Amino acid sequence: MEKIGFIGLGIMGNPMAAHLLAAGYQVFLYSQGGIPAELTQAGGLACANSADVASKADVIITMVPDTPHVEAVLFGENSVSSTISAGKVVVDMSSISPVATKEFAARLAKQGVQYVDAPVSGGEVGAKAASLTIMCGGEDAVFERVKPLFEKMGKNITLVGGVGAGQITKVANQIIVALNIEAVAEALLLAAKAGADPARVRQALMGGFANSRVLEVHGERMVKRTFNPGFRIELHQKDLNLALSTARAVGVSLPNTATAQELFNSCAANGGSQWDHSGMVRALEKLANFEIGQ
Amino acid sequence: MEKIGFIGLGIMGNPMAAHLLAAGYQVFLYSQGGIPAELTQAGGLACANSADVASKADVIITMVPDTPHVEAVLFGENSVSSTISAGKVVVDMSSISPVATKEFAARLAKQGVQYVDAPVSGGEVGAKAASLTIMCGGEDAVFERVKPLFEKMGKNITLVGGVGAGQITKVANQIIVALNIEAVAEALLLAAKAGADPARVRQALMGGFANSRVLEVHGERMVKRTFNPGFRIELHQKDLNLALSTARAVGVSLPNTATAQELFNSCAANGGSQWDHSGMVRALEKLANFEIGQ
Repeated sequence: MEKIGFIGLGIMGNPMAAHLLAAGYQVFLYSQGGIPAELTQAGGLACANSADVASKADVIITMVPDTPHVEAVLFGENSVSSTISAGKVVVDMSSISPVATKEFAARLAKQGVQYVDAPVSGGEVGAKAASLTIMCGGEDAVFERVKPLFEKMGKNITLVGGVGAGQITKVANQIIVALNIEAVAEALLLAAKAGADPARVRQALMGGFANSRVLEVHGERMVKRTFNPGFRIELHQKDLNLALSTARAVGVSLPNTATAQELFNSCAANGGSQWDHSGMVRALEKLANFEIGQ
Repeated sequence: MEKIGFIGLGIMGNPMAAHLLAAGYQVFLYSQGGIPAELTQAGGLACANSADVASKADVIITMVPDTPHVEAVLFGENSVSSTISAGKVVVDMSSISPVATKEFAARLAKQGVQYVDAPVSGGEVGAKAASLTIMCGGEDAVFERVKPLFEKMGKNITLVGGVGAGQITKVANQIIVALNIEAVAEALLLAAKAGADPARVRQALMGGFANSRVLEVHGERMVKRTFNPGFRIELHQKDLNLALSTARAVGVSLPNTATAQELFNSCAANGGSQWDHSGMVRALEKLANFEIGQ
C-alpha cells in the first residue's frame, strides 16, 4: 500500500485526508494552519513541514488555496522538492493556474517525479461525502497509480488529458457556472421588472433549451432570496481570475467572463464577498434599481 | 366547436394550422405570402385578408415574423380590429415585444376582445411534430378556452401570468440560451487554446454544475463543427433585439446579452446569419485567432 502525504488540511483537505485514513492508508500530514487533532487521533502522522512529508510518503497530495501556495509548498523553504526522490508522485488537488501547473510539473520531472493535477468540484459538502468531481491531467500510467486514492475521495473521476488538463477543465467549469448564473440573473431580473412572476418564468423555462443545473439550483436561490453559501463569491472571484489570467497567457478574449468578474467585484464592494455566487444577481439588481423579490 | 382563424402560414404557421385542420376544426386562413395549397386541400377556407378572417372566426391566431407585422395584422389596413366583435379572442403565437403586446391587448379590450400571447419554442421541427413549448400570458378563463387548440400544436403548455407574460418568458428563454451558448464557447475555446481536447473537457463537465441542455447540444456542435441550422443566427438576433429593447423600456441593464448580440453581429458580418446559433463560437474564435477544431 502506498504511503500518502497530505499537505493542506483546511475545510477541503481535512475531510479528504480523513477518507484516506479511514480506508487504511498511512497518511503523513502537514498544514500551515496546524494539523487537525481528529486526523492524528484517526492514525494520521504529523510532520514538521512539507519537506518532512515528501521524505516519508510515496504520493504527496497538495490541497492549498491558490497558485503561490502550491509553489511555496513545492519549491519554497522546507519544500517538497528539497527532499522528494525519483519515482514518487505529486498530486495537486488545489485549483490553480494551468500555466503554472505545467511549469511545476516540468521542474519536478527533472527530479524524476511525476505530477498529476486533479482539482475538484463539489465543495465542502462533496469533500465530506466523498462525492467530489475530480478533473485530472497527467500521464495514463501515473493516473492509474493514484486513481484508487481519488476513488476514496470522489465519484466522478475523469482523466481529461496531459498535465494541466485537469486545471484547464476546472477553469472551464467555473467559467460556465459563473456565466450561467449571470444568464439566469439577467433573464429573471428582466422578467420580474417587466411584470412577470420570476418563479413561474423559471418553472416554465425548465422544460426547454434554457434548462441547466444552474437554472434549477441558483435560479431558485435568486427567487427565494437565499444567498447563504453554497459557494462563496470570493472563491469564484479567485477562479475567474485564473480564467482571465490564463486567457491572457494563451491569447483568448473572454468578454462575458470579464463582465461576470466585474459583477462579482460589485457584490464584494457591497459587502457580498461571503454571499453564495447566485448573489451575483444583486449586482444587476443595483444597476436596475429593482429587486427580483419586489 | 370554435371556428378558428389562422393568419401567417409560413414555416411555422403552415404545420400548426394543419394540425388544427387534422383535429377537425374549421379553419379560416390568410397569409401575406399566400395560402399553401395543402391547407385548402385539407379543408382550410381561404380568406381575402385579416379582416375577412376576423369576421368569420371566433378565435384568431396570428403567427407572423415580428412586432410590426402583428401590429399591421391587428390594426392596419383590412385588419382584424376592423371586423372583430366582442366575445372573440386573439391569440398571438408570434415572438414579439412584451411591451407592445400589452398595448395591443389593451386596444382590443376596448372592443370586448380578449387576448392571449402564446409564443413558442421548438422551431420548425416542433411545429411539424406538434411538440412545441408554448409560453402563455392572459386571463385564466380565456386561457382555458383556447388551451385545447394549444394541445393540438404543442406539448409543454404553461400559463405564466397575465397578458405579456408569455412574451416575457420567451425573451427570458432566448437570453438564457444565447448566454449559455456564449458561456460554452468561451470555456471550450479557452480550453482548446490552452492545449486540452475540447471534446474531453465537454464530456468531463457534463457530470457537474456546468451541465446544461446547451452544453450537451450546442457544445457538441462547436466541437464537431456542425453549424447548419438548427436555429439561425438571424432569428436569435431578432430575439435579442427584443430582449435589449424591452430592457431599455422597463429599465434593466443586460451587459452579457448586449455582448452576445454583438458577437452574433460579428458572425453576420462574416457571412454567418444563416449559421446555427452555436456558430457564435466563431466570433470568439476570430478574436482569439484560433479555432476549436485546430
